[in-house]
Amino acid sequence: MAADDTSGPAAEVADLWAVVPAGGAGTRLWPLSRSAAPKFLLDLTGAGRSLLQQTRDRLTPLVGDRFVVVTGQAHREAVARQLPGVADRWVLAEPSPRDSMAAIGLAAALLERHDPAAVIGSFAADHVVEDPDGFRECVRTAVAAARDGWLVTIAVEPTSPSTAFGYVRLGDPLAEHPGVRLVQEFVEKPSLPTAREYLASGHYRWNAGMFVVRPALLLDLLAEQDAAFAADLRAVAEQPARLPELWPGLPRIAIDRAVAEPAAAAGRVVSVPASFDWDDVGDFEALGRLLDSTPGAPTVLGDPRRVVGLDTTGLVVAAGRRTVAVVGVSDVVVVDTDDALLVTTRRHAQQVRWVVETLRDTGRGDLT
Amino acid sequence: MAADDTSGPAAEVADLWAVVPAGGAGTRLWPLSRSAAPKFLLDLTGAGRSLLQQTRDRLTPLVGDRFVVVTGQAHREAVARQLPGVADRWVLAEPSPRDSMAAIGLAAALLERHDPAAVIGSFAADHVVEDPDGFRECVRTAVAAARDGWLVTIAVEPTSPSTAFGYVRLGDPLAEHPGVRLVQEFVEKPSLPTAREYLASGHYRWNAGMFVVRPALLLDLLAEQDAAFAADLRAVAEQPARLPELWPGLPRIAIDRAVAEPAAAAGRVVSVPASFDWDDVGDFEALGRLLDSTPGAPTVLGDPRRVVGLDTTGLVVAAGRRTVAVVGVSDVVVVDTDDALLVTTRRHAQQVRWVVETLRDTGRGDLT
Repeated sequence: MAADDTSGPAAEVADLWAVVPAGGAGTRLWPLSRSAAPKFLLDLTGAGRSLLQQTRDRLTPLVGDRFVVVTGQAHREAVARQLPGVADRWVLAEPSPRDSMAAIGLAAALLERHDPAAVIGSFAADHVVEDPDGFRECVRTAVAAARDGWLVTIAVEPTSPSTAFGYVRLGDPLAEHPGVRLVQEFVEKPSLPTAREYLASGHYRWNAGMFVVRPALLLDLLAEQDAAFAADLRAVAEQPARLPELWPGLPRIAIDRAVAEPAAAAGRVVSVPASFDWDDVGDFEALGRLLDSTPGAPTVLGDPRRVVGLDTTGLVVAAGRRTVAVVGVSDVVVVDTDDALLVTTRRHAQQVRWVVETLRDTGRGDLT
Repeated sequence: MAADDTSGPAAEVADLWAVVPAGGAGTRLWPLSRSAAPKFLLDLTGAGRSLLQQTRDRLTPLVGDRFVVVTGQAHREAVARQLPGVADRWVLAEPSPRDSMAAIGLAAALLERHDPAAVIGSFAADHVVEDPDGFRECVRTAVAAARDGWLVTIAVEPTSPSTAFGYVRLGDPLAEHPGVRLVQEFVEKPSLPTAREYLASGHYRWNAGMFVVRPALLLDLLAEQDAAFAADLRAVAEQPARLPELWPGLPRIAIDRAVAEPAAAAGRVVSVPASFDWDDVGDFEALGRLLDSTPGAPTVLGDPRRVVGLDTTGLVVAAGRRTVAVVGVSDVVVVDTDDALLVTTRRHAQQVRWVVETLRDTGRGDLT
């Protein structure tokens, strides 16, 4: 069975809409990522395109102009500027942050009315995928299963016992969809020993937060857990003017917890196990891993002529206008911007959020 | 015997002239110290006064306006601006760098003619002395011995087995000058085991490069080693217009090697062993030691409100206009200026000169 009914691997998937929630503070990537310039708007890989734009580029061969972004009011304009080909009506602005269920649910409710035959695929705006062809092949497989009434998640083969991601436990293969397997359960970010067991067992995949599903099914699954939530989303889709009234009352909950976990427990979720390289670029440790590096020298993001690294390894981000010299520090992280500088080590990458908290607690929130 | 014949410890020493060579690149203090703004012109201790100005302040109670600076042509104007009370004729400009013998010798030759009864005391422009009263007491003692025809060095009691300084080996006390001892020899910067032996023996002092002597004796001692050198200096003093002609031919040699070492070997050098805290602030390790610090937090030079240090020790110099955050690095050295940033550790303080060399070798010498 072909993943796409209409034609070969290069063709669009005519009934697929991409839904891209563009939110999140990215405080562990401070001072690159700021409230006013969050991670998804940044070119974090030196590709010349922001993570959001790269997400768009990766999906365009599949969805053409069927691309919906859900972002904060404050970023609507910047998002529209970065995505000139996306129609204004499909850049949705949340009145306030309400986590991924509300964001994706809003897009699903609108599309349920706009295109009743649609399948939606939701993908974060700020993740990195190294193999876009492999990614698109997985999405095609997922769409085929979604058309048959499954909630499909694309789960990534783990390359390390990461404690930064949630996991998906795979069950039996689906006879009618080669390469697709039932999902037994979603599990939270594990401890390191547990993550090692997951990796060794071969039964687990990283939950990359990619869901492919018919909008009506998504909302129906949500209604089983929280009827008012689903009803409010559908009410907004019917009367968009009610958004300001209903939005503030929506629960703050992730789609994983609101729908995927209970649906998996009920045997209604399947997974396309994927082997493309994927990362959520959550911190500078991850960013350093992603970038090309020279052994024994620091990895540089920015103009390498502005960096002098002697007896140094790690990551130097030269995002300011100055020369950066690092001498004799292993696994260093130096992030130089015009108004703020961070110095830490890869081992402390997760603790960078402390700086943001400290700045906010001490009246310097304008820097965050 | 009183160190000063005329009056008590607060009075000027009427026959004493301070001679302050203000040179040296301070490349281990890059990017604070630059060719255009060398160490002696900088306020390295947060005192509100440059090291040169602090040297002047320390000596003024002893010498009043009898203060001579010898500096490079490029810095003559900046030096004069920092020392408004010093007469223009006593800010001497070297046509090119010729090390300390030529610099101090030029001042000595001029003073030999200007004030034949003078004693000169030469002190570097970029050292730090923590106890100015103790320092001045030592100088008074040294002047008394110098009047009796000794070349006197003020040698500092070592507080650690430093390998960054040369040492002076002390001999017998001088009967006629209490507190003054013969110098057996000057020794070069030692290895660490040798430095430990020196410290344990109690016979050694740091050579702080402070010499007190009659100008005529200094030049006569030089003439014994290099008659032409002394003759050229005296010729310039007689006919200042000959400076551009004679200066380029003068040997590049330190006063220690040109005069002090051979004179000590001949039994003509004495020392005033001093116990005041002294440092040549040669690198960021030394600078960190000098500044007040809070245990468990980084020492800050600059505006502490611009520094966020979490789980960090070491030195942060906030000389730029940005906020500096350091997370989880021990003994770090971060020096932030408007156009260049250095990140290293205290242990690598000596290697900072590599950065300067690298920048010069790669066409970025304008930053050094």
